[in-house]
Amino acid sequence: MVTSPVVNTYPLSSYTFGTKEPKMEKDTSVADRLARMKVNYMKEGMRTSVEAILLVQEHNHPHILLLQIGNTFCKLPGGRLKPGENEIDGLKRKLTSKLGANSAALVPDWQIGECVAIWWRPNFETIMYPYCPPHITKPKECKKLFLVHLSEREYFAVPKNLKLLAVPLFELYDNVQRYGPVISTIPQQLSRFQFNMITN
Amino acid sequence: MVTSPVVNTYPLSSYTFGTKEPKMEKDTSVADRLARMKVNYMKEGMRTSVEAILLVQEHNHPHILLLQIGNTFCKLPGGRLKPGENEIDGLKRKLTSKLGANSAALVPDWQIGECVAIWWRPNFETIMYPYCPPHITKPKECKKLFLVHLSEREYFAVPKNLKLLAVPLFELYDNVQRYGPVISTIPQQLSRFQFNMITN
Repeated sequence: MVTSPVVNTYPLSSYTFGTKEPKMEKDTSVADRLARMKVNYMKEGMRTSVEAILLVQEHNHPHILLLQIGNTFCKLPGGRLKPGENEIDGLKRKLTSKLGANSAALVPDWQIGECVAIWWRPNFETIMYPYCPPHITKPKECKKLFLVHLSEREYFAVPKNLKLLAVPLFELYDNVQRYGPVISTIPQQLSRFQFNMITN
Repeated sequence: MVTSPVVNTYPLSSYTFGTKEPKMEKDTSVADRLARMKVNYMKEGMRTSVEAILLVQEHNHPHILLLQIGNTFCKLPGGRLKPGENEIDGLKRKLTSKLGANSAALVPDWQIGECVAIWWRPNFETIMYPYCPPHITKPKECKKLFLVHLSEREYFAVPKNLKLLAVPLFELYDNVQRYGPVISTIPQQLSRFQFNMITN
């Protein structure tokens, strides 16, 4: 038998959630975002970004923590690496910025695990693909999704302008309309893992 | 940096394709298939099946080998394990049955690699999910997809009633209408791999 990698998932209720100062989006529109991406590309080359899949369980089913902006748009915690920055260090930095308490002692010791997906942006457009499309020699962004292994107890400080949601896999699955192509296919990418559901 | 697992992909032209006797489907309709599944479940419990992702490259883009039945339906090579059979041995047996030459010396030495996805069938119905849905305590089937690492040269014998197609990832992606939910999301599951495209 081939053994699946095991992921411990703890109940949502074992985590504590507080708030902190707002983290505003850098752009107020998609057009602004793509324009800023273009300027950065000219200065620094391909954008590399990293995002985290944080797992909890409720009713013995895995849930993913998503940050909700306004009433509809959801995203994974993460962001852009600095030029030359290591992926693991960069993701830890971003997680602390998005979800860590202001007091360093309360910030989780982020355990960055498996890379589960890589997405490519061929042009300065919103569409991304899970491969670099043929004939694209200069992709504009490479985004990697990592599983982050949470401990049994953590404190998360959520920026006041955002909501942190625990969304079940069955809600994400086949729901590209609501969650987009990257987040809605996370259930498929996680299917090879064995979830060790810990109850308390 | 986290290193991605590497998969060598060789040009389609480095493989040789012959034919062999037809391998007929056991069922002539979906209803027959589900009825047979029910009978087998009563005798043997949950069905476990294994399928192979065989990769080649053309124009520096990965392609997957699919078996086409009739003019539309495509499937991965693989099938049902015998009760108690090991997944790796079972997949090798199925690959040899579907694609191996009748002469044992010509059958590839199948190198079964990473499990990339696991799908669950909760009921005696066609729909499957990339997780076992909540409240389902007795799933009817568990299907695992494995990457199979091909050597530089292989001989495949294709049953006369089937066609073997090399389908590019960009054709599969976001094409659930043509390929169904399992095959159309293979590009996402493979995105974490680094393809070492070998040309000759």
